[in-house]
Amino acid sequence: MTAERTPVADEDAVALFERLNREAGQAGYHMNPDMEFVLGLMRGLLTNKERYGYMACPCRLASGVREKDLDIICPCDYRDPDLAEFGGCYCALYVSNAVLQGRQHLESIPERRPPADEREVKEVGQHAPPLGEVLPFPVYRCPVCGYLCAMNTPPLVCPICKADRDRFVRFF
Amino acid sequence: MTAERTPVADEDAVALFERLNREAGQAGYHMNPDMEFVLGLMRGLLTNKERYGYMACPCRLASGVREKDLDIICPCDYRDPDLAEFGGCYCALYVSNAVLQGRQHLESIPERRPPADEREVKEVGQHAPPLGEVLPFPVYRCPVCGYLCAMNTPPLVCPICKADRDRFVRFF
Amino acid sequence: MTAERTPVADEDAVALFERLNREAGQAGYHMNPDMEFVLGLMRGLLTNKERYGYMACPCRLASGVREKDLDIICPCDYRDPDLAEFGGCYCALYVSNAVLQGRQHLESIPERRPPADEREVKEVGQHAPPLGEVLPFPVYRCPVCGYLCAMNTPPLVCPICKADRDRFVRFF
Repeated sequence: MTAERTPVADEDAVALFERLNREAGQAGYHMNPDMEFVLGLMRGLLTNKERYGYMACPCRLASGVREKDLDIICPCDYRDPDLAEFGGCYCALYVSNAVLQGRQHLESIPERRPPADEREVKEVGQHAPPLGEVLPFPVYRCPVCGYLCAMNTPPLVCPICKADRDRFVRFF
Repeated sequence: MTAERTPVADEDAVALFERLNREAGQAGYHMNPDMEFVLGLMRGLLTNKERYGYMACPCRLASGVREKDLDIICPCDYRDPDLAEFGGCYCALYVSNAVLQGRQHLESIPERRPPADEREVKEVGQHAPPLGEVLPFPVYRCPVCGYLCAMNTPPLVCPICKADRDRFVRFF
Repeated sequence: MTAERTPVADEDAVALFERLNREAGQAGYHMNPDMEFVLGLMRGLLTNKERYGYMACPCRLASGVREKDLDIICPCDYRDPDLAEFGGCYCALYVSNAVLQGRQHLESIPERRPPADEREVKEVGQHAPPLGEVLPFPVYRCPVCGYLCAMNTPPLVCPICKADRDRFVRFF
């Protein structure tokens, strides 16, 4: 007999969904309303957790080395730009409010992750550019609560006060 | 017969209250405990949502042009300074903890919104001042969790770890 | 008869636990799973609240002057560095996920608070160093959501999107 992987229990998939859904809601994100589809992704995440020790994106091929896969641990580094541009993350696990309400149609989302030889590997203890030099991301400010966020585009909604993205103003 | 607006259903007002109340609580804000008063404001917000497409403040006159009213979409840009100075927002929809607990009396709140000809209109894609120049708001730091907030005064409580305002320290 | 302090009611201790536990969970923190131990700390916090007017750490001696004790109001300024280094705060009220899951053993946590004559007293209205000078804490960025946090080490998990600490990158 070959080693067999224990199939993911339904209740584990549901429990993971409930945690991620609660966390998403608190921060102003939304999960795909297609429950069966989402539970399939939960099983993929739990399988990856068992296989690699971390919840690598179920729609991408993980290396098995956490340091090389930091960018694709779910939620991945590409979720927010994909939500902003396409209304969904690469897996379509997370969708924008516009998609959720049927105001935007979710099409297939191209892979934003750079190929392996173009990826920046995070160096432990790496130094930051001194203030005054150019920062790698602009910083946006929520005018309601003062929340600061360093992204190429502001979040769809402020995770603190839920103000919409178009209210954010470039801060520095 | 003239066109009539459908009155806001009670359950819609309650549902909006429940969402806003949950979001407020998560970020350390409080809604006015006078439920009847609050449900009236919910009806106003939903009426504005239907009329303008966005939830403009029910206590102010909206222009109908979202770009011109970004500052008065609820929660408005003036909520937090009004909470800090007067213990309530302009509508008294949101109140401070001190007001909620009866330690502060809520008086009428003056209009903080500048007149139309003095309002800064947000330019899309506007540039930020380079680092090193004077920023439009000071940045405060929560000493417990490191949360950064760009406001003239720190939040009443840290939205992340609920530390009180007087613990915040000016960061830059 | 000498004045007696009213003992803390069980339901008050439970209510405080429920609030702190909810707030902890929302921001990615965890309370010690030993309920009896935690309820004892809740009683200590409520006793301090009654005695001093603020919830000073139940495991430290408070001065009774809020301005001098700002750093030990619970959650204290030392919680996060202690969680990062030892897996628990000084009281063991908050524990790391690793401790909660039994992957880390909680040992006794040394006092991180400086002695009284070495503590910096917060000056009201103190000025911040101008940008370009050295900041007192590095700023880390969550690569998933852009959250910025000024601490010597990043949070155990991002309070917004729950990304793990090792994904954070030094921002400035």
